[in-house]
Amino acid sequence: DFLNALREVIPAFGASTDDLERCRLNGVVECGERHDHIYRRTMLLAEQVKVSQGSPIVTCLLEGPSGSGKTAMAATVGIESDFPYVKIISAESMIGLSEGSKCAQIVKVFEDAYKSPLSIIILDDIERLLEYVAIGPRFSNLISQTLLVLMKRLPPKGKKILVIGTTSEVQFLDSIGIRDAFSITFHVPTLKTEDAKKVLRQLNVFASDDIDSAAEALNDMPIKKLYMVIEMAAQGEEGGAAEAIYSGKEKIQISHFYDCLQDVIRY
Amino acid sequence: DFLNALREVIPAFGASTDDLERCRLNGVVECGERHDHIYRRTMLLAEQVKVSQGSPIVTCLLEGPSGSGKTAMAATVGIESDFPYVKIISAESMIGLSEGSKCAQIVKVFEDAYKSPLSIIILDDIERLLEYVAIGPRFSNLISQTLLVLMKRLPPKGKKILVIGTTSEVQFLDSIGIRDAFSITFHVPTLKTEDAKKVLRQLNVFASDDIDSAAEALNDMPIKKLYMVIEMAAQGEEGGAAEAIYSGKEKIQISHFYDCLQDVIRY
Amino acid sequence: DFLNALREVIPAFGASTDDLERCRLNGVVECGERHDHIYRRTMLLAEQVKVSQGSPIVTCLLEGPSGSGKTAMAATVGIESDFPYVKIISAESMIGLSEGSKCAQIVKVFEDAYKSPLSIIILDDIERLLEYVAIGPRFSNLISQTLLVLMKRLPPKGKKILVIGTTSEVQFLDSIGIRDAFSITFHVPTLKTEDAKKVLRQLNVFASDDIDSAAEALNDMPIKKLYMVIEMAAQGEEGGAAEAIYSGKEKIQISHFYDCLQDVIRY
Amino acid sequence: DFLNALREVIPAFGASTDDLERCRLNGVVECGERHDHIYRRTMLLAEQVKVSQGSPIVTCLLEGPSGSGKTAMAATVGIESDFPYVKIISAESMIGLSEGSKCAQIVKVFEDAYKSPLSIIILDDIERLLEYVAIGPRFSNLISQTLLVLMKRLPPKGKKILVIGTTSEVQFLDSIGIRDAFSITFHVPTLKTEDAKKVLRQLNVFASDDIDSAAEALNDMPIKKLYMVIEMAAQGEEGGAAEAIYSGKEKIQISHFYDCLQDVIRY
Amino acid sequence: DFLNALREVIPAFGASTDDLERCRLNGVVECGERHDHIYRRTMLLAEQVKVSQGSPIVTCLLEGPSGSGKTAMAATVGIESDFPYVKIISAESMIGLSEGSKCAQIVKVFEDAYKSPLSIIILDDIERLLEYVAIGPRFSNLISQTLLVLMKRLPPKGKKILVIGTTSEVQFLDSIGIRDAFSITFHVPTLKTEDAKKVLRQLNVFASDDIDSAAEALNDMPIKKLYMVIEMAAQGEEGGAAEAIYSGKEKIQISHFYDCLQDVIRY
Amino acid sequence: DFLNALREVIPAFGASTDDLERCRLNGVVECGERHDHIYRRTMLLAEQVKVSQGSPIVTCLLEGPSGSGKTAMAATVGIESDFPYVKIISAESMIGLSEGSKCAQIVKVFEDAYKSPLSIIILDDIERLLEYVAIGPRFSNLISQTLLVLMKRLPPKGKKILVIGTTSEVQFLDSIGIRDAFSITFHVPTLKTEDAKKVLRQLNVFASDDIDSAAEALNDMPIKKLYMVIEMAAQGEEGGAAEAIYSGKEKIQISHFYDCLQDVIRY
Ligand SMILES: Nc1ncnc2c1ncn2[C@@H]1O[C@H](COP(=O)(O)OP(=O)(O)OP(=O)(O)O)[C@@H](O)[C@H]1O
Ligand SMILES: Nc1ncnc2c1ncn2[C@@H]1O[C@H](COP(=O)(O)OP(=O)(O)OP(=O)(O)O)[C@@H](O)[C@H]1O
Ligand SMILES: Nc1ncnc2c1ncn2[C@@H]1O[C@H](COP(=O)(O)OP(=O)(O)OP(=O)(O)O)[C@@H](O)[C@H]1O
Ligand SMILES: Nc1ncnc2c1ncn2[C@@H]1O[C@H](COP(=O)(O)OP(=O)(O)OP(=O)(O)O)[C@@H](O)[C@H]1O
Ligand SMILES: Nc1ncnc2c1ncn2[C@@H]1O[C@H](COP(=O)(O)OP(=O)(O)OP(=O)(O)O)[C@@H](O)[C@H]1O
Ligand SMILES: Nc1ncnc2c1ncn2[C@@H]1O[C@H](COP(=O)(O)OP(=O)(O)OP(=O)(O)O)[C@@H](O)[C@H]1O
Ligand SMILES: [Mg+2]
Ligand SMILES: [Mg+2]
Ligand SMILES: [Mg+2]
Ligand SMILES: [Mg+2]
Ligand SMILES: [Mg+2]
Ligand SMILES: [Mg+2]
Repeated sequence: DFLNALREVIPAFGASTDDLERCRLNGVVECGERHDHIYRRTMLLAEQVKVSQGSPIVTCLLEGPSGSGKTAMAATVGIESDFPYVKIISAESMIGLSEGSKCAQIVKVFEDAYKSPLSIIILDDIERLLEYVAIGPRFSNLISQTLLVLMKRLPPKGKKILVIGTTSEVQFLDSIGIRDAFSITFHVPTLKTEDAKKVLRQLNVFASDDIDSAAEALNDMPIKKLYMVIEMAAQGEEGGAAEAIYSGKEKIQISHFYDCLQDVIRY
Repeated sequence: DFLNALREVIPAFGASTDDLERCRLNGVVECGERHDHIYRRTMLLAEQVKVSQGSPIVTCLLEGPSGSGKTAMAATVGIESDFPYVKIISAESMIGLSEGSKCAQIVKVFEDAYKSPLSIIILDDIERLLEYVAIGPRFSNLISQTLLVLMKRLPPKGKKILVIGTTSEVQFLDSIGIRDAFSITFHVPTLKTEDAKKVLRQLNVFASDDIDSAAEALNDMPIKKLYMVIEMAAQGEEGGAAEAIYSGKEKIQISHFYDCLQDVIRY
Repeated sequence: DFLNALREVIPAFGASTDDLERCRLNGVVECGERHDHIYRRTMLLAEQVKVSQGSPIVTCLLEGPSGSGKTAMAATVGIESDFPYVKIISAESMIGLSEGSKCAQIVKVFEDAYKSPLSIIILDDIERLLEYVAIGPRFSNLISQTLLVLMKRLPPKGKKILVIGTTSEVQFLDSIGIRDAFSITFHVPTLKTEDAKKVLRQLNVFASDDIDSAAEALNDMPIKKLYMVIEMAAQGEEGGAAEAIYSGKEKIQISHFYDCLQDVIRY
Repeated sequence: DFLNALREVIPAFGASTDDLERCRLNGVVECGERHDHIYRRTMLLAEQVKVSQGSPIVTCLLEGPSGSGKTAMAATVGIESDFPYVKIISAESMIGLSEGSKCAQIVKVFEDAYKSPLSIIILDDIERLLEYVAIGPRFSNLISQTLLVLMKRLPPKGKKILVIGTTSEVQFLDSIGIRDAFSITFHVPTLKTEDAKKVLRQLNVFASDDIDSAAEALNDMPIKKLYMVIEMAAQGEEGGAAEAIYSGKEKIQISHFYDCLQDVIRY
Repeated sequence: DFLNALREVIPAFGASTDDLERCRLNGVVECGERHDHIYRRTMLLAEQVKVSQGSPIVTCLLEGPSGSGKTAMAATVGIESDFPYVKIISAESMIGLSEGSKCAQIVKVFEDAYKSPLSIIILDDIERLLEYVAIGPRFSNLISQTLLVLMKRLPPKGKKILVIGTTSEVQFLDSIGIRDAFSITFHVPTLKTEDAKKVLRQLNVFASDDIDSAAEALNDMPIKKLYMVIEMAAQGEEGGAAEAIYSGKEKIQISHFYDCLQDVIRY
Repeated sequence: DFLNALREVIPAFGASTDDLERCRLNGVVECGERHDHIYRRTMLLAEQVKVSQGSPIVTCLLEGPSGSGKTAMAATVGIESDFPYVKIISAESMIGLSEGSKCAQIVKVFEDAYKSPLSIIILDDIERLLEYVAIGPRFSNLISQTLLVLMKRLPPKGKKILVIGTTSEVQFLDSIGIRDAFSITFHVPTLKTEDAKKVLRQLNVFASDDIDSAAEALNDMPIKKLYMVIEMAAQGEEGGAAEAIYSGKEKIQISHFYDCLQDVIRY
């Protein structure tokens, strides 16, 4: 489903489809059961919001290790839904702003959404929105309180909102009560060997003999890091090999691939 | 009593009945002994305030898990009482304000109340008014001190006030001395299997054979979450089933209901 | 003595007697040995201040559980003394002020007192003046330092001051050195069964057979909470009974009284 | 020596002798060996400062329990020395000032002193100057740094300064390095039974038979508290006895004296 | 490779080659396997960035003990790459600026880089950029959040960036999540005896008999400290020997060298 | 060497020799091996800076107990070197300034130094510059970061700087990484009995029979405190003896000397 979803894209009002598209720079490949399940359930929530009387705001959290595909997933739901207002709230567009200004921008997005009959708001990397850092720990309580209230506040009569949050610091969100403020939470996992194998086949950069052992080595890797290692390995030991590999003329040398993997994995 | 109370609604001066009504978006169904007892006792306090000489201000705290029905209960007392001034103080209408401005708004509500012979003030989600977060913990001491003083300050001669607070963080309120500042505290519980069964019967979305096992699975669920799960389940596995179910044409598939419950309960 | 003291009230300069009177809304009833002793000793201090050469400022702290009657006691001494300047400093009249403004107000009261040959200053609920909260703990060190200096500073030649403080957080005052800054400290206790019995007899709302068991149940209750429970019980289970009881036509139902007591006592 | 010192008082430039005199409101009585020794040594330091070449600034700390007579001692040295500039820096004259203004005032006193060939500066109650409170602990580091630098900074050529500090929180001063910044520290003790006996004889308010047992009960009492207890006891149980006792017509009742002592001593 | 790289230097747009050159004041000598490997891999990353489609921003962290050669290495990559925009962000040019201004400057460098098709940005001494101090610990969360966002934000279409960070506090970076934000991390080590021997031969300041034992004593020394010790030793015990030694006329006395080493090594 | 150094003093540009001279108010006497060694090595560093190519900035820390002679030593190096710019940065000249202004002043001194071919900058009492206090601990991170950057920043081409720091809180400097920022650290010790004996002989205030036992009692005393004790003892028990002793007519009474020592040593 998830893959098919990509085919036909309906223009969204809030975020240009372009913005949402940049959230999945490496496209969307088939990468396992769990990803698929979460995608389907989140699409169902969008539908529920449409028809609900008693819950005009529904909230859903995608959490999982860094690079596991949360943002790409949320963007895809935003693109696939036929909601007229889809907006992504991300720290990228608020660099250097004061806490107060950030709050104002976030509130603005919700107030805009209150004008549309159906809206999706993506709170991307909530820990970054909250300026979270593990030491202390420190974070913006102003923004945290704002989110807690916004996620509970009812939109005006007749308006409906689906909020999708993403985070790789679910324990932190838990400890400040933001996780509990979501109606539902899904864990977006890393790839298992089986999943990695699927992805490698689709990418077609290894000799077919090497795919199994490469996938084995990639067990428990998030999808985003997998792309990075492949790219590094595609350079070749002496550099300059990338073009030949991407064009399919050559394959990645498995030993060099292991070397790169070594560098990337934390010792 | 609680249910009957809904029938005849007298317009309130402070909060438009509309505001109070939105606090119980799913209406009020019969949901067990304890809810009933608390409702009756709180109504008695309203009466006590009216006739008292020595205690012109009485304060009552409704505490319990998130979604157990505290706000809906307080709103119902406000609607059912025939007090000319009923006002709800909630973080929703104060997003982004400074601590100082929030205090000023809260004080304003009390000063307005001092002009009415009889008033009810609902302090909704006190932890949110205090901008509480468990890490640290942090909260606004300015607002906390303001509440402590306001709840002890005598209104002018001849004026009477009933303050109803709600919170799902009673331990926090305890640790900062706000709980002790209330004359009385009631614990609003989750639903027991028996209570859930009553509610399900009233909702009429399950096949009668399924009600018992569904209620069993819903043991210890707060009333608000119960509504959320029902809604999710009503979508059906493939979506699109909601209308048929709410109109009574179909019933919720019990297995899909279990699935949804699984997703909602924290692992 | 304490009771008799109420009979003849001389108008005080600093605080209108009215202000001081509102501090004892339920009047002053005979409530036990200890209360009496403290009252007599504090009156002696007022006399000492008058004649002293070497100690032109004497300070006395009334501490005890919430509602034990400290403020009413201090107000009574203020009313009974024939001092031309009697002033109560309370957080109620300083809601929302900055620390600095509160300090200025407090200093102002002392400077006014320096103009009167004899003054009593009541520092009511010192923990509230200090904006104390147990978590942290936090409090205003600015105000705390101001009090420490003011309570040690000598008034101008020929002027005399008695400072009476009240608090229900004596351990906190101790930990910040404010308790040691008082010349003397008295512990105002809760009521023992015997004391409660005396009070109940004076109130005359129980059948005489019930007084003993009611007093038993009220052992260790502060006087202020005793009044609250009586009022709740006087409503009757179905409401509407208060008038009959206060007018003496009916008596409080002992079983309903126990019920109310249950609700009030913290579980 | 100490006592004789009081006889002839030379007017001081910095502080009016009046200011210094108010620091010993109960006069100076003979109160034991240790007090005497400290007084003599501090007077020697004043002399040393006059003749020294290599140490134009000498600093001396008087520390001891609250009320042990530190301020009175420092004031006496200031009065007895023939230094043209004697100034007391105390929190009393700086209530409500910001840290910065306090610093400025302190610096000002030193700069004034730099203009006099010989100066004594009394830093009274250093913990209060530093706005110290045990919880936290908190204090003004700005003032603390200022003192540390001022006590080490050399006055201009040919100018000499003796700094006398007093404190009842010597452990705190120790922990922030201020105690080490003093050239020398003296511990001003409470009274022992023998010392108390001497004092009581001079005060002549007890029957001669009672002096021994009264002194026994006063063992380990600071001199200032001793005066307070005597005053309380002099009131008599029913009040009104003070005049007769101070005029020598009557003596203090020993049993009432014990009662008062009980109230004053912390339980 | 690393050494050869120095021969031909292509002028860089962002930082004048002069700035980058000052980062390696003692030139670049052959100093062991590991240094070489890291240099080659980092050059490969520069190449990868050029050809990549899916990863327009690649980030690489050089971490290691103080003085191990991280900055010199990063500067060399910047010089050797043929990237039109190379910029070093260092605390040196931001002394005394507020956190906000520092952030603005850092953002500015990235925005400038977004205008160049290929850019290298060196974040030198990240702990210093973050104003890190171990006590507390304290650091600028504002700058930390800015870096976290900038290192994840995609440059505009068609633009590519390589970010090279250096730090000697990798554990700190780890604890605040900045290390994880880098695609890859290399550990730049101290010199082993073998490496030191190579360096000493190139420097030619010891008698050939002394090189082995000197190198032995220099085991585990960072390259920068090695230069410092050599300079100290070259002074000679009585001073004045440096010129003769650098011109090759004399050699360093091994015993004096040991003395200097002793002083430099922390006891 | 150290002593001889005093004979011929060349005027310095940055600090008037007068300023530096006041740093050694008791002159410089011969006081042991270790002091001598450190002095010679620090002078060598000054020479090294002059001829070095690769290390245009060299930094050296003198640490040791309070009063051990660090500042006097640094001042002597400044006076003895023939560097055209010698400047002492001390908290004394920055009392009451904000952190920001202090930073600006420190930066100014470095920028001035950048204009001189050869400079010595003395950072006196670094813990005081940093406003350090052990409780917390607290200190100015702004100043600390400024020092860390300034001590690493290269002066412009052709300019050379020697930085000498002094501190009696080396563990604190260690914990914030400032100690590591110095190229080299020397520990300036207290006097041993032997060293004290040498000093006493030079001072010539004891009867020759008493020198040995006096020196014994002074074991482990910092040189500055030794001077203080001698001065106190020279007063004599009754005062007035100082002149006779300094002029050599009388000697210090050994018993009175012991008494004074007792008072000065911390109990
Ligand atoms: N099925 C898929 N689901 C999600 N992402 C996919 C899928 N197939 C390919 N991708 C690619 O994998 C990458 C996932 O990265 P993404 O930024 O979504 O991860 P993330 O979990 O949000 O990471 P982070 O925790 O760093 O925010 C994207 O480049 C996306 O194009
Ligand atoms: N008998 C009842 N009592 C309370 N609420 C009921 C009852 N019957 C139905 N409801 C519905 O249950 C929901 C209770 O939610 P409510 O917001 O009052 O819970 P809450 O305890 O205030 O939650 P929170 O802790 O999140 O503030 C409302 O939608 C209300 O309409
Ligand atoms: N003998 C008495 N002494 C004190 N209060 C009495 C007495 N008799 C009756 N009262 C009534 O009891 C109540 C005592 O309340 P009061 O406010 O003085 O208590 P408190 O100790 O100051 O409480 P809190 O700790 O909350 O400030 C008053 O309403 C007063 O009228
Ligand atoms: N020999 C004496 N030495 C000191 N004080 C004396 C002596 N004789 C009598 N007094 C009286 O004892 C009192 C001492 O109080 P003083 O304020 O000096 O104590 P303190 O130690 O400074 O107290 P605190 O710690 O509260 O500042 C004064 O009233 C003083 O007049
Ligand atoms: N092969 C080499 N690699 C790195 N530096 C070298 C090499 N050969 C010589 N050097 C010299 O060694 C010194 C390395 O110092 P550099 O400032 O790079 O260390 P650093 O690790 O950045 O130190 P810090 O942790 O203090 O920032 C420079 O002076 C450089 O010229
Ligand atoms: N050989 C010597 N070395 C250092 N100081 C000496 C020497 N001989 C005499 N002195 C005198 O000893 C005193 C040393 O005091 P100095 O202020 O230098 O100590 P310090 O270690 O800087 O103290 P602090 O830790 O308090 O800053 C000066 O008065 C100086 O004149
Ligand atoms: Mg993401
Ligand atoms: Mg609620
Ligand atoms: Mg009170
Ligand atoms: Mg004092
Ligand atoms: Mg570096
Ligand atoms: Mg010094």
